[in-house]
Amino acid sequence: MGDTVFSKIIHGQIPCHRVYEDDRVLAFLDAGPLSTGHTLVIPKESAPTLDELSDESAAAIGRVLPRICRAVMHATGATACNVLQNNGPEAHQVVMHVHFHVIPRFPDRRTGAGLEISWQPTELDSDAAGELASRIADLIQAD
Amino acid sequence: MGDTVFSKIIHGQIPCHRVYEDDRVLAFLDAGPLSTGHTLVIPKESAPTLDELSDESAAAIGRVLPRICRAVMHATGATACNVLQNNGPEAHQVVMHVHFHVIPRFPDRRTGAGLEISWQPTELDSDAAGELASRIADLIQAD
Repeated sequence: MGDTVFSKIIHGQIPCHRVYEDDRVLAFLDAGPLSTGHTLVIPKESAPTLDELSDESAAAIGRVLPRICRAVMHATGATACNVLQNNGPEAHQVVMHVHFHVIPRFPDRRTGAGLEISWQPTELDSDAAGELASRIADLIQAD
Repeated sequence: MGDTVFSKIIHGQIPCHRVYEDDRVLAFLDAGPLSTGHTLVIPKESAPTLDELSDESAAAIGRVLPRICRAVMHATGATACNVLQNNGPEAHQVVMHVHFHVIPRFPDRRTGAGLEISWQPTELDSDAAGELASRIADLIQAD
């Protein structure tokens, strides 16, 4: 870990089309955009997945996401956008450095719509859910 | 806006299986889970989409996402997870109150895999990208 294409971008060894930078965060256009304006927001901290990222870096990314969404939508004329952050190969992560995708969406397809999401919800079993929620809550509190 | 199912959950008018709460953030199990442990992380601030959310609420959500991912994955045995945040009907948003989905993923399908993502990247045109990146960067700086 550490030597991904994103760490090389952070260190200026690979160029990028930068849109934002501060002490903890870098944002730039995705080189393989799913739609016009598809932007990546990454921490400068080297962490493969979000569960391994520090609270401070995660907060810094969260803080700038509204501004980045606004600017990307305004600049492209997008009417909607998805923010997607994948952790682990089973979740479609390819580059093992945390990255948030900001993917603008448009009412028509001309501007690109390379992201398709299919959603098949189940029903929550109330007893099992109560037990699971309390296990998750305990783990968060103990963290 | 303001009177969504999530604002009712925040105000205790509808019950939820809560996993985390602080001054700005509430997290609870999704009532229509895509997989075991599917969790929603929402701001208490009433904003329909991320581009309308305050920096402070967005930072507060960002800060707790690593802890929530860790706990959800640990409690469920998930090996991966997606964080997905949809803004606008064209991006599959249904409830018009900002929410981040934390969706655990598993190597097999028994535990549920109701999320399918299809990814069709294009190629970035370098000249157009330079111009677009600088337009987005200017908008962020002026924000």
